[in-house]
Amino acid sequence: MTYDTLLLDVADGVATITLNRPDAANALDLTMAEELCHAATLCDEDDGVRAIVLTGTGKMFSAGGDLASFAKNEEELPLLIKRMVTALHAAISRFARGDAPVIAAINGTAAGAGFSLALATDLAIASADAKFAMAYTAAGLSPDGSSSFYLPRLVGARRAAELMMTNRRLTAQEALEWGLVNQVVPSEEVLPTAMVLAKQLASGPTKSYGVVKKILTQTFGESLETQMEIEGRGIADSARTDDAKEGIAAFFDKRSPNFTGK
Amino acid sequence: MTYDTLLLDVADGVATITLNRPDAANALDLTMAEELCHAATLCDEDDGVRAIVLTGTGKMFSAGGDLASFAKNEEELPLLIKRMVTALHAAISRFARGDAPVIAAINGTAAGAGFSLALATDLAIASADAKFAMAYTAAGLSPDGSSSFYLPRLVGARRAAELMMTNRRLTAQEALEWGLVNQVVPSEEVLPTAMVLAKQLASGPTKSYGVVKKILTQTFGESLETQMEIEGRGIADSARTDDAKEGIAAFFDKRSPNFTGK
Amino acid sequence: MTYDTLLLDVADGVATITLNRPDAANALDLTMAEELCHAATLCDEDDGVRAIVLTGTGKMFSAGGDLASFAKNEEELPLLIKRMVTALHAAISRFARGDAPVIAAINGTAAGAGFSLALATDLAIASADAKFAMAYTAAGLSPDGSSSFYLPRLVGARRAAELMMTNRRLTAQEALEWGLVNQVVPSEEVLPTAMVLAKQLASGPTKSYGVVKKILTQTFGESLETQMEIEGRGIADSARTDDAKEGIAAFFDKRSPNFTGK
Repeated sequence: MTYDTLLLDVADGVATITLNRPDAANALDLTMAEELCHAATLCDEDDGVRAIVLTGTGKMFSAGGDLASFAKNEEELPLLIKRMVTALHAAISRFARGDAPVIAAINGTAAGAGFSLALATDLAIASADAKFAMAYTAAGLSPDGSSSFYLPRLVGARRAAELMMTNRRLTAQEALEWGLVNQVVPSEEVLPTAMVLAKQLASGPTKSYGVVKKILTQTFGESLETQMEIEGRGIADSARTDDAKEGIAAFFDKRSPNFTGK
Repeated sequence: MTYDTLLLDVADGVATITLNRPDAANALDLTMAEELCHAATLCDEDDGVRAIVLTGTGKMFSAGGDLASFAKNEEELPLLIKRMVTALHAAISRFARGDAPVIAAINGTAAGAGFSLALATDLAIASADAKFAMAYTAAGLSPDGSSSFYLPRLVGARRAAELMMTNRRLTAQEALEWGLVNQVVPSEEVLPTAMVLAKQLASGPTKSYGVVKKILTQTFGESLETQMEIEGRGIADSARTDDAKEGIAAFFDKRSPNFTGK
Repeated sequence: MTYDTLLLDVADGVATITLNRPDAANALDLTMAEELCHAATLCDEDDGVRAIVLTGTGKMFSAGGDLASFAKNEEELPLLIKRMVTALHAAISRFARGDAPVIAAINGTAAGAGFSLALATDLAIASADAKFAMAYTAAGLSPDGSSSFYLPRLVGARRAAELMMTNRRLTAQEALEWGLVNQVVPSEEVLPTAMVLAKQLASGPTKSYGVVKKILTQTFGESLETQMEIEGRGIADSARTDDAKEGIAAFFDKRSPNFTGK
């Protein structure tokens, strides 16, 4: 599959999706949103994809919505934006609902929808020189890309309000302290670190990861008892997999399990 | 408008509401709760109010519910309390649902409903010598003032339980580390710092801030996909505003935008 | 009451439940899950129990689900697991819904369902040498024991995903920084510290603590206004108790209140 604005590579169970508009700071236009949705859906339909890495070409992760394309379409901007979010949000939903863990390899600054996209993953490795800014309200817009779902669940509504209203710029170190990213490494180690983690997860019990993703995505709307019933059904489903049999056997054999994702 | 227990001042798009019972540590009685509801409603109805600062006169922000008025009404305390929370909670709802960002300028210690009120704002600047205590259960009562909405969403249920059960007193520095306040400054700089921020926000894209407030207030009850659809409708609405046109134009002109709140 | 896998002791209003399979690292088998449910229900039905301490015998708090019993039942593992979670989750629900504060005295490492159980309490004191690991996916399973309810509400979904997918091991100090435990003390001080806190809470306004627990357990699913109405009804109920009368009187008498839990 070739795209105009993305690179998609699948190897060793890991799909790497690279935002690839380096001359435009990997800004998100309608084409990129639609291609991202297509790529996310491809990964979701491919059982061989057991982990996904999302990264960007060049110095930035993504500058966010492509204001140049917005400016050209000013009269019909609400229409353009609705078409973009339809694609972008479907991509994010696909990432969230699939079994494969999704890792953001944040190679550089992430702003606006680029920041949102970095948040809409299960795990994140950030470059030490990356900066994070919501940026939407600086252009008279409001946040999208699931940022209002993930950000307040990560840092609370007050810090989220600060980032969304004042557009305060966070350093990678602050993002780590706030729990927005899991690890900060030097720029050149971002992708290698993410790939090591992705390969490890691609060799893991994929169905169990799918249950983890499901229970974490829906937890905030459920009561304690309902969430526990869903957990109970999830662990029983996990227990039915080949990987559970292998995991328990390996524990007693004192060896590493050989998970197949089934 | 003059009040018995509050000061209300509107200038340059900023409404400043000051809890004004310094001889009673700005404790909240029925009159203050009702006046706060009135003032919050006035601000909500006034399009010229594009930011709100909530602060207190004297050394304390607020000592919380006025136990003296509670003691006088002991036989009918549940009735008095229900009347107070009706007014207090309506005020908090008005602050949360209006477009104008609300900033707490926490000039000193905030206890009980004073702490709750400080939490029920979008942003908070605290005095370095302020202390924070839930205090309710020390008097055999339980928390109100939206504290059980905001506190666990900011710090998790376990730290919230600790504050609500043991009445552990937090310093301003701890409140900052826990994400309860956005900034800690020396006592005499609290109000000036809050006013600078308020003026900046009062010159911002008010409708976009309204969308930010809306999506952050409701996010915890929504599923990922529903929340993204609400975001999508919100950014499309933002894109329809004069401020979005101005914001995008200013970006390309490399100048500061001149937002009008429309 | 005597149990095969637990110790239950009630004194001075404090029930102490001790996981007591030290030769099996206090691993949770079906018997322990059912006995835990029985003990939690006993405490819930006993008005004299005004605080609960949950701890373990020996060096570990609990190693989690008993893989030895899982391995023996491989063919019917999903059935066994459903029976276990039925009992375990009912115990957790009983702890959460009763009025008495529940304190985890985490005497040592907590893994898998042991970690989950430590999270499913109102407050937690951890040994400085305790380690915390989700561990489930290492065996091809997925988390249960309410961990997907409490963990993301404490640390956000991203850190929760990291703990659940990579099985990263947290030190007690990290658990404190992340808000997973309230206090870290040397190993030999864990139980004494928890008992001091439990006795303090057992002398507190039990009904008010019950309201605190109720509003914190259900808050994430409620809208701002609904949550405030529930708070309002809760504080009015609290105001009806003997303890509220005593608490307010003691405040004006400048003495410590003498709460009876009524």
